[in-house]
Amino acid sequence: MRKHLGPDSACSVARSLDLLGDKWMLLIVREALVSGTTRFSDFKEALGIAPNILANRLDTLVEEGLMERHSYRERGARERSEYALTEAGKALNVVIAGLATWGRAKRPREGGNSPAFTVGATGEIAELAFVTADGRRVSPECLVSTRVPDVPE
Amino acid sequence: MRKHLGPDSACSVARSLDLLGDKWMLLIVREALVSGTTRFSDFKEALGIAPNILANRLDTLVEEGLMERHSYRERGARERSEYALTEAGKALNVVIAGLATWGRAKRPREGGNSPAFTVGATGEIAELAFVTADGRRVSPECLVSTRVPDVPE
Repeated sequence: MRKHLGPDSACSVARSLDLLGDKWMLLIVREALVSGTTRFSDFKEALGIAPNILANRLDTLVEEGLMERHSYRERGARERSEYALTEAGKALNVVIAGLATWGRAKRPREGGNSPAFTVGATGEIAELAFVTADGRRVSPECLVSTRVPDVPE
Repeated sequence: MRKHLGPDSACSVARSLDLLGDKWMLLIVREALVSGTTRFSDFKEALGIAPNILANRLDTLVEEGLMERHSYRERGARERSEYALTEAGKALNVVIAGLATWGRAKRPREGGNSPAFTVGATGEIAELAFVTADGRRVSPECLVSTRVPDVPE
């Protein structure tokens, strides 16, 4: 998965994709984030993913600090692991919401559904949107692209 | 790339990732969107991607309606193709901006830079943010996840 990014490693999108540019990574994150899945067997069932691929991706998510592994033991069973998103993993909600926004608009499907995010305290829906510094919401079609340094000088 | 999604095809994130869950797809889109790249040789050079993989991914982007292929001919040279994002391709700015937001925050790098989006008419920076229906910006850490139908009933 990880390639030599070369000069492209300066780009934050390339660095994100070097880690996340494999659909299983983001599907596992979605499953944890939206469905609250924590157990290996539940990820396997929900995603229809081969066990060896799932184990590999969960290891990477733990190594990269996006998930934490905890042990648990059910009565009479052997010890097992469960997985919880870290703060860095939960922060991927902006990527998951972006994919949901695009998929809903450009790959609609009857009977489909999307992850959505609500404000914990009030239950209001929070949509992903482009906004200016003074808080105006801007239509994505009005935007042009540029590049900015990661840390403003 | 495309797998049998099964029941997961109901999810807009899964449908997006089934197409985009390969880092080259989104790096090509980023390159077209942020750097304005249109030509095969320019994509190849900017991304350090193997020509056969690039040709395959560009074909998929055209087939899926995210790019359009046009012919051009420079004086004395053979006819070549160039590639332009369609409206559906440009709408991926929300995904690219999401990846930039996460990469900048969670995979910072000295001297790094990010795609950013500005309002074409005014030049103001437009940031990707979660906002409520009444226009309040909400911190991503305050959000909880749920699922909503793609088309509200």
